[in-house]
Amino acid sequence: MTATGSAFLDQCRAIVGADHVLELDADKASFLTDQRARYTGRALAVLRPATTEQVAALVRACAQYRVPIVPQGGNTGLVLGSVPDTGGAAVVLSLARMNAVRQVDAVNRTMTVDAGCILQQAQEAAAAQGCLFPLSLAAEGSCTIGGNLATNAGGTAVLRYGNTRDLCLGLEVVTPQGEIWNGLRGLRKDNTGYDLRDLFIGAEGTLGVITGAVLKLYPQPKAAITALAALPSPVHALRLLGLMQDFCGASLTGFELMSQYCLELVAREFPQLQQPFTTPHAQYVLLELSSSESEEHAVGLLERAIGAALISGVIDDAVVATSIAQSTGLWQLREHIPLAQARAGKNIKHDISLPVSRSADFIAATGPKLEAAFPGCQLVCFGHLGDGNLHYNVAPPMGVSNEEFLLRQDAVNRVVYDSVESFGGSISAEHGIGALKRDELVHHKSAVELNMMRAIKAALDPLGIMNPGKIL
Amino acid sequence: MTATGSAFLDQCRAIVGADHVLELDADKASFLTDQRARYTGRALAVLRPATTEQVAALVRACAQYRVPIVPQGGNTGLVLGSVPDTGGAAVVLSLARMNAVRQVDAVNRTMTVDAGCILQQAQEAAAAQGCLFPLSLAAEGSCTIGGNLATNAGGTAVLRYGNTRDLCLGLEVVTPQGEIWNGLRGLRKDNTGYDLRDLFIGAEGTLGVITGAVLKLYPQPKAAITALAALPSPVHALRLLGLMQDFCGASLTGFELMSQYCLELVAREFPQLQQPFTTPHAQYVLLELSSSESEEHAVGLLERAIGAALISGVIDDAVVATSIAQSTGLWQLREHIPLAQARAGKNIKHDISLPVSRSADFIAATGPKLEAAFPGCQLVCFGHLGDGNLHYNVAPPMGVSNEEFLLRQDAVNRVVYDSVESFGGSISAEHGIGALKRDELVHHKSAVELNMMRAIKAALDPLGIMNPGKIL
Repeated sequence: MTATGSAFLDQCRAIVGADHVLELDADKASFLTDQRARYTGRALAVLRPATTEQVAALVRACAQYRVPIVPQGGNTGLVLGSVPDTGGAAVVLSLARMNAVRQVDAVNRTMTVDAGCILQQAQEAAAAQGCLFPLSLAAEGSCTIGGNLATNAGGTAVLRYGNTRDLCLGLEVVTPQGEIWNGLRGLRKDNTGYDLRDLFIGAEGTLGVITGAVLKLYPQPKAAITALAALPSPVHALRLLGLMQDFCGASLTGFELMSQYCLELVAREFPQLQQPFTTPHAQYVLLELSSSESEEHAVGLLERAIGAALISGVIDDAVVATSIAQSTGLWQLREHIPLAQARAGKNIKHDISLPVSRSADFIAATGPKLEAAFPGCQLVCFGHLGDGNLHYNVAPPMGVSNEEFLLRQDAVNRVVYDSVESFGGSISAEHGIGALKRDELVHHKSAVELNMMRAIKAALDPLGIMNPGKIL
Repeated sequence: MTATGSAFLDQCRAIVGADHVLELDADKASFLTDQRARYTGRALAVLRPATTEQVAALVRACAQYRVPIVPQGGNTGLVLGSVPDTGGAAVVLSLARMNAVRQVDAVNRTMTVDAGCILQQAQEAAAAQGCLFPLSLAAEGSCTIGGNLATNAGGTAVLRYGNTRDLCLGLEVVTPQGEIWNGLRGLRKDNTGYDLRDLFIGAEGTLGVITGAVLKLYPQPKAAITALAALPSPVHALRLLGLMQDFCGASLTGFELMSQYCLELVAREFPQLQQPFTTPHAQYVLLELSSSESEEHAVGLLERAIGAALISGVIDDAVVATSIAQSTGLWQLREHIPLAQARAGKNIKHDISLPVSRSADFIAATGPKLEAAFPGCQLVCFGHLGDGNLHYNVAPPMGVSNEEFLLRQDAVNRVVYDSVESFGGSISAEHGIGALKRDELVHHKSAVELNMMRAIKAALDPLGIMNPGKIL
């Protein structure tokens, strides 16, 4: 280590204490490898502040010594946004110790939390006050609110409640200069200048460090009911979506598409899970209805809607969960798709979105293109169809190893992303850009848009120390 | 006019045609005075482009000649954001000719419109396709979508559907350099870099000119039902809000507070409007419930909720509208409050917001402060309590003329805004800052926040030609 590096770390130790400046490889390891174990970076140290003031002091030290900062929450991101590169000059700034729920205001329907608060803890703190914090996603047991905000996380409740962006009223941020911006406002309406909150949300830590947030809460629904519908095609799924929204309005809180191949994969890898249909169908939609009134109301509404869908030929069959256990069983089928994929071996993943109205056409058009270029490849297509968000993953043909197929990732991406572009879609629906899609991004944004992004980055972080190499 | 000014206007005429460069005072007049007729500015000319390309060419000409640009939609703003100052160097850029609905996509539940599209026309175009564009406010017959976006307009449906910001998926913007940013994406999820959309929304034309937008649509509710509840205090109104949200969830689409003084004012100025209660109560709440199911469902739900509120002593009395005419009559009481105020003479207006949980305490604390400082002054307090948004207007004491009282505006503002600040509120809930509240803003934002705003302004509009003197 250089004398400068040593002086910098001395300063960090003075701020957070020696115990919270991790320098040993063994201590740093879990902070340096991404969730999917595809990439391992290096870092000068991992810093673990306990307060916003400590974050600010650490950022000032980093600015002084020009040390790049990689903010990290639960490190569950999927685009290499929260791990450092292999240069070894950066520090990882872990928000994990700042994990408190600062306040719940049930009358204002807001809660104020530290950035390092685990999503599930936030959900539980809201529930304890009779409120719902609706953000829900697979990593909720270990991801943090700060990471959810930095990536504008989506999940399964977006159809009704929106993305993380829509669930945040205010932020506390440490700027790249190490100043604290207290924007912890719990206001539904506040038109007083530029929307800095939404600029930091989704910026993946490249403009500053989110240290706290005011989140929106909702009344707890009195009942939720789940069903699985079987149908012949994604076109039918879109018709079902329209029908359900017309019948149920805001009561429709989940709408997840799964192909037959997805359920086959789950059945193969998790044979203990019960499969609801004895004969196969091409596509399935997992529906969730919530009622602010009663279970009876939810059941009646769902039955009327499903009945109408059956009569009009939109769906072929449906099962309605009549117990919490059955409902959990249906959701488990959906949630086990990524787990089944992981067991089946690495594939080439895409987190894309389309205008809802074009998503069926995208599916119809893109499969044949992939088949032509990569004969026999397997499509694992599922996701939040109600939001136009598909997890569109491509697995190798029979007889081709996962490792071999991964070598063709760029070519597969080209086919998928070009098709996404031609349908007016997005190459990242809910995961972000990180380092993983940075090079791809420039193919999909105009120079005008990229230049505005770069101008904002330069204006707020002129030293370029905040999470360099991510997004831009 | 200088030779430079003349050359500039020649260029403008070459771009939009001589008919659409207004130079005569009579032609310019309506573009130079604000909605409340409190301020009249001057302008070199009013420019009326018909296409986005013409807007871009005009902005390039303005950049070349360093001519300040004041973008203008329906000119219905309330904070002097859409009129020029008295210097006479600026041009007004009217988007009024760009008023088309470009496309409605009922399956994606989106519509793409020109910035100059009148809000009511957008509502009607959505309704024609069986969809709801929920933004609704008093000026909807003449305000434009571009102005709604520039000010992040609120209105009466925010409780359920959010502010204009929440109703926009994509933007088309002409940058201060005269480039066109096509961000007209109709995606529910798109995490690909900085949220430029939300930066332009609410920026009041100081960062660029919004020329088009993709707006979110919703299923049309099958029924809406209105009621007026009478209650003893704002504290009771908050309890009613919690009760209604617990009973009705997302079906509660309107929650408007009005004081007895507001209804007295309406009764005095508009005696033809029917007053629903024969004996006075201290406060009233106008409730609106929408159902995605049926009128029967809405009525049943409302009756159960109102019944519970009566039994638990949250409200003293209530009338439920049993016809569209009665419902309209109840809404008219609410909508006539600002009209009655205008007839009664100019008063000192505040568009403020509080955390919902603190709004009753704010009302209880601020009235006595004003009474102490300005004995006998009259409070006209009403608004969107469900969003914590109050229109908190102060009228002169008996015997003091409106003109005389307006001279004390700064002192009145001081009392109100200091109280707002002490309750964690905002000095502009839904109207924006414009030129009117620019000086006030610096009392309420930290240096950190103001500096970030200034850095962004300088980065995107280095020549400072976009709506100078507004916000910053």
